[in-house]
Amino acid sequence: MDFPRDYEVFDLGDFTLRCGQTLRDAKLAYKTFGALSDARDNAIVYPTWYSGRHWDNEWLIGEGMTLDPSRYFIIVPNMLGNGLSSSPSNTPPPMDRARFPPIAVLDNVIAQHRLVTERFGIERLVAVTGWSMGAGQTYQWAVSHPEMVPRILPFCGSARTSPHNIVFLEGVKAALTADAAWKHGWYDEQPTRGLRAAARVYAGWGFSQAFYLQEAWRELGYTSLEDFLVGFWEGFFLDRRDANNLLTMLSTWQRADIGTTPGFDGSFERALGAISAKAIVMPAEKDLYFPPEDNAYEVEHMPNAELRIIPGVWGHFAGGGPNPVDTRFIDQGLRDLLAS
Amino acid sequence: MDFPRDYEVFDLGDFTLRCGQTLRDAKLAYKTFGALSDARDNAIVYPTWYSGRHWDNEWLIGEGMTLDPSRYFIIVPNMLGNGLSSSPSNTPPPMDRARFPPIAVLDNVIAQHRLVTERFGIERLVAVTGWSMGAGQTYQWAVSHPEMVPRILPFCGSARTSPHNIVFLEGVKAALTADAAWKHGWYDEQPTRGLRAAARVYAGWGFSQAFYLQEAWRELGYTSLEDFLVGFWEGFFLDRRDANNLLTMLSTWQRADIGTTPGFDGSFERALGAISAKAIVMPAEKDLYFPPEDNAYEVEHMPNAELRIIPGVWGHFAGGGPNPVDTRFIDQGLRDLLAS
Repeated sequence: MDFPRDYEVFDLGDFTLRCGQTLRDAKLAYKTFGALSDARDNAIVYPTWYSGRHWDNEWLIGEGMTLDPSRYFIIVPNMLGNGLSSSPSNTPPPMDRARFPPIAVLDNVIAQHRLVTERFGIERLVAVTGWSMGAGQTYQWAVSHPEMVPRILPFCGSARTSPHNIVFLEGVKAALTADAAWKHGWYDEQPTRGLRAAARVYAGWGFSQAFYLQEAWRELGYTSLEDFLVGFWEGFFLDRRDANNLLTMLSTWQRADIGTTPGFDGSFERALGAISAKAIVMPAEKDLYFPPEDNAYEVEHMPNAELRIIPGVWGHFAGGGPNPVDTRFIDQGLRDLLAS
Repeated sequence: MDFPRDYEVFDLGDFTLRCGQTLRDAKLAYKTFGALSDARDNAIVYPTWYSGRHWDNEWLIGEGMTLDPSRYFIIVPNMLGNGLSSSPSNTPPPMDRARFPPIAVLDNVIAQHRLVTERFGIERLVAVTGWSMGAGQTYQWAVSHPEMVPRILPFCGSARTSPHNIVFLEGVKAALTADAAWKHGWYDEQPTRGLRAAARVYAGWGFSQAFYLQEAWRELGYTSLEDFLVGFWEGFFLDRRDANNLLTMLSTWQRADIGTTPGFDGSFERALGAISAKAIVMPAEKDLYFPPEDNAYEVEHMPNAELRIIPGVWGHFAGGGPNPVDTRFIDQGLRDLLAS
């Protein structure tokens, strides 16, 4: 894969995963924006999402934005499995490709915590925020390290993957793996037919019914529905995405549940209750796989949380940065959170 | 395919389709319930849905139900492409399998109209009703034959396939055709991997988020989520379904639009305005591909229509007969309609 070299790598060494296997010589790729203050008190962690890479998070960072690098030190860690951090596609044999072990959300947060504390000597963050699976990692940070995380803003995500979300992902997985060129993970060339099929399955979920009815894809420069399906969606899944990487992250996503954090005995509600961070939880009004009602349930069980719904038709991708209205709404949420 | 022989066949002869091709020696398979009155004034047409067969409609018919065969003569015509009426799977060469021509909703209604008028000599129906694509045919009946159709009750369907619905179906199609065993339609054995993948894609759409959260599949006798995905969904797609048939019906569905009926110059709203039938339009509250707001728009443009939403978590399958609460609700709607 042809990636830019604009990032750093933190060596995790021999990193034992929740599943019991050990990723030897494991790597956590990350990029930082801004400078860490002398007091080490201006850091924000902003993890990536399903198939996202650090550069896919940059739309929310910049001068004039709440995540302003002139004020904050913003750390964007790449999720394990995304192709930059240790992944099926970049791990040497024997633990490569179809043999890459299952990764938990908690594995990601443990790795990120080591980065933050060992490399940067940070004892307390300003906040953690993230979209989609990045929101899942945000919740996990708050549960695992309450003393370090005073504020969180998870958007378009959840603290536990719902059964329906699991089913939606089963469809994506089934489409990808129906392609015989996938070869149970032992392909030499990407199974592009399967990747394109997965993209078409995803297309119905990523944006809302109303988005398609209003042809809001025109705002992104597409000229017909098929133009959008091929240009945006198939292009998305072909843009340096690897099939095994996608399946690894999909598995991480399907099994996400903060209730499985050690100390909570599997109780989702107890884990939610342990989130002392001030939280603004931002679902998108028409998100089809992270519906607002799931976040409403979470907020009821969190001691210090506000539910603030992103209005409009963009569905899950309201949190992906494609349109300025939703971006401003999220940015304002971050501004309110950081001012408190 | 091993089908029961409990149905009749109406010979359509050489049947010219909207696309311009002619299905030679075309067949319309149907089943009737009850007896046609001497005045021929007690007939109800109840078309099938995507992949449904006449026996899949029987849950809404019976003694004590509104569709009581002791009172009404209920005609269930099988949709073209469903494996019983002329289909890719049962048409002799050269117009078989991958060469089966595209079928329009209007083709189905033209065929059904011939059955009703030529075989039974019926000049006026009591009503037309149907679920999902059966609802689409119901609208088409009302537009094409207003003088024959005084009442309609389309449930969980629409008069025009929405763009999002088209996208959802693209995902189903992409999953099915990602299987190389499909062979562009020239398979000798069903591409079961693709059929199972299509089933898994469909699973997320057929029932709502809340249905899965509440594990309402337990009411159907399934014992885990995976048990439901395999037992219900994969079983559904493997139950005498043929890949080419599914693709034919999918294409019919994607192109559905009553505005394309001759005489309306492509205007959806004008066609809706021409529906003089008294209508009770029944979407399911949480239907993910026929959302109630689309039906609300239709009802606004229909001169004599009521919107009556089926409450609850069953989503699209509220109209498929799996649970008695929703079945009673639909049956009551029919009762009210037929009493008016």
